[in-house]
Amino acid sequence: MHNNTAISELIEAGKWISQQGWVPATGGNFSARTNTSFVVTASGFDKGQLGTHTFIELDHQGNRQAGAAKPSAETELHLSMYKLIPTANFVLHTHSVAATVLSRIIKGHSLNLQGYEMQKSLRGVTSHLDILSIPIFDNDQNIDRLSLLVSDHHLHTPIEHGVLIRGHGLYVVGRDIREVRRQLEGLEFLFSCELERLKFSGQQAEVTL
Amino acid sequence: MHNNTAISELIEAGKWISQQGWVPATGGNFSARTNTSFVVTASGFDKGQLGTHTFIELDHQGNRQAGAAKPSAETELHLSMYKLIPTANFVLHTHSVAATVLSRIIKGHSLNLQGYEMQKSLRGVTSHLDILSIPIFDNDQNIDRLSLLVSDHHLHTPIEHGVLIRGHGLYVVGRDIREVRRQLEGLEFLFSCELERLKFSGQQAEVTL
Amino acid sequence: MHNNTAISELIEAGKWISQQGWVPATGGNFSARTNTSFVVTASGFDKGQLGTHTFIELDHQGNRQAGAAKPSAETELHLSMYKLIPTANFVLHTHSVAATVLSRIIKGHSLNLQGYEMQKSLRGVTSHLDILSIPIFDNDQNIDRLSLLVSDHHLHTPIEHGVLIRGHGLYVVGRDIREVRRQLEGLEFLFSCELERLKFSGQQAEVTL
Amino acid sequence: MHNNTAISELIEAGKWISQQGWVPATGGNFSARTNTSFVVTASGFDKGQLGTHTFIELDHQGNRQAGAAKPSAETELHLSMYKLIPTANFVLHTHSVAATVLSRIIKGHSLNLQGYEMQKSLRGVTSHLDILSIPIFDNDQNIDRLSLLVSDHHLHTPIEHGVLIRGHGLYVVGRDIREVRRQLEGLEFLFSCELERLKFSGQQAEVTL
Repeated sequence: MHNNTAISELIEAGKWISQQGWVPATGGNFSARTNTSFVVTASGFDKGQLGTHTFIELDHQGNRQAGAAKPSAETELHLSMYKLIPTANFVLHTHSVAATVLSRIIKGHSLNLQGYEMQKSLRGVTSHLDILSIPIFDNDQNIDRLSLLVSDHHLHTPIEHGVLIRGHGLYVVGRDIREVRRQLEGLEFLFSCELERLKFSGQQAEVTL
Repeated sequence: MHNNTAISELIEAGKWISQQGWVPATGGNFSARTNTSFVVTASGFDKGQLGTHTFIELDHQGNRQAGAAKPSAETELHLSMYKLIPTANFVLHTHSVAATVLSRIIKGHSLNLQGYEMQKSLRGVTSHLDILSIPIFDNDQNIDRLSLLVSDHHLHTPIEHGVLIRGHGLYVVGRDIREVRRQLEGLEFLFSCELERLKFSGQQAEVTL
Repeated sequence: MHNNTAISELIEAGKWISQQGWVPATGGNFSARTNTSFVVTASGFDKGQLGTHTFIELDHQGNRQAGAAKPSAETELHLSMYKLIPTANFVLHTHSVAATVLSRIIKGHSLNLQGYEMQKSLRGVTSHLDILSIPIFDNDQNIDRLSLLVSDHHLHTPIEHGVLIRGHGLYVVGRDIREVRRQLEGLEFLFSCELERLKFSGQQAEVTL
Repeated sequence: MHNNTAISELIEAGKWISQQGWVPATGGNFSARTNTSFVVTASGFDKGQLGTHTFIELDHQGNRQAGAAKPSAETELHLSMYKLIPTANFVLHTHSVAATVLSRIIKGHSLNLQGYEMQKSLRGVTSHLDILSIPIFDNDQNIDRLSLLVSDHHLHTPIEHGVLIRGHGLYVVGRDIREVRRQLEGLEFLFSCELERLKFSGQQAEVTL
């Protein structure tokens, strides 16, 4: 994939994601792995109104190759995801109310979803009886330390679709733009359902397998 | 009804249903009974951006007559609905947060709604004092088995407006596109109301008649 | 006000009300008192897509003067509101999730709101310390009987802004289209707030003064 | 900043804020400090459809310089915010369901937010571990008295981003239009999250530090 193609796809995706309310207050950041390197959104822009000037090109070591703007503080975490998951070509990081709240009320180290047909919108999931497990990491302003934690976790429990950062948001990956958008939409639907369902459980401990 | 008319109606309905957020992540599928056979949406497409190439034509035995795309996995359940309900000419299958969650928190075999004026948006309901009963079936990845279950249930308790699949979504039928859209909108409104109302009940058992 | 002016205002109001989700599944109906008589929406139309043919003209006795369509079943209640409240020139009847649910979980005969600045969007309310009281009537498919109940209630407790019908929706009045729209929007905001607030009360009895 | 620039920015901001549902029923008001004086929205207009005629120009003493319309009743509170916070050049006052309800269910004198990455959308906040404290004042129809209360509070606890008025809404400030919009969006996101999170706490006392 050429840089320009990746950037076009992310500009379009940004408009849709912004309409959903998942990147408020210039929050969130998006990236893609291209045939030469990486492209990542610059810091501080409205993700619903991205343009070519709001992207930065990085080389494989994460050094800026092109783009005058400041890279997102969370670029390191994007690069970690690409290193850990060789098939990932897109990473979308979003802030929804459901992801933020759910990652706080679940006290354990993962959100475990079961019983939802929509789980099948995630690559490799074939039944609602499967347990779809999304790891939850405590938030950390030190992104290098957070990235290491994610990498360490991956050694014993491979990350497949994405991760939640507690009180912060979701990182979701995909092989192409269609897959990453579908997985984002599927996960956000599941988060909304689970947040509603837990209001009726009275037993939050039960849901952290 | 000609195939082309049915397809046009479903394309329009899909735009509206997608805007409501009831077919996220390429979920859901739609069909119609036409004067020659059936048309049904193909698998894997965004239901808010359907086109003529995203439909498949089936004969009365459910064999593909036209359309290169893969039929939806849940086609069998659509065909069962047409067989059981002779007046049904449209079937819409949707995934809303309210339908998904409500079908999980109600542990019984039906959602029984009473006391809502909006029940009258469903064919044949003339009073809020009537009990509107929507059967709930446990989800099953084996669609043939699920279809049989629905058919067996229909023998003793005829299905009138649609069914809920637990943790999955709604199948709603209608004589024409106006009726099926009105019934979908009415049911989704009722699901949203009931989900809110149950938050105040503290007695969920009471609501499964 | 001429009939044509009233109809134009109601067509515009209908688009906005439909976008808010307050008239789903062809629900709701709207009317105006004009310098010759009354105009009221016909039954069965989408209130977001009204046209001149979807209105009926009634004389002061409620008899149809013009318009081929079927008058709304709830026309009688509109006419009662105009009789009771001489300054009312518009009546909007809507079905929102918040109005429907709130009127069911409050078991008493009125919704009493206090402590909200938004109460001041209702004519005559000058402080959040005032108690804004909206009567709640049990729903009844016999509209004549329901209208009588409303009229009887008005004798001892004059209706000022509107009434709630339990599990059904809101009737709101206004002197002109701006006032009725503002009062509808203000009340719906208050209903949404109160429904959320009551989730934290644990004491529903306390809120029915 | 010229008056005309400030007015243009506020007209644009008003459209967006109205779409978010944060200024229902002609509620809310907006203002800016310009290089000659202040501009503030007139009372009674829909804040999503502002025009140059819906603004009033005030001098530094708060006296009307230009504009025939009636100034907002809450103008005094806007002027107080500018006096207290020398870097504030915009003040937006909004009414959202979340701000209204949250300011009522929190019984203490401030909303204290911690553990949210989104806190960093507020100027000067660098970590989710910081406590972001937004003062809550009891609502008062006497705006002079309310303004004095805010000013007195500021003497011992400087207001940085804005204040909540109980059951009423939010006042948020910013150095420029981008900052005030980002801070409004960030705070509203945080209010929505916190309102949801508290539904799971069962211990509301705990959250008022």
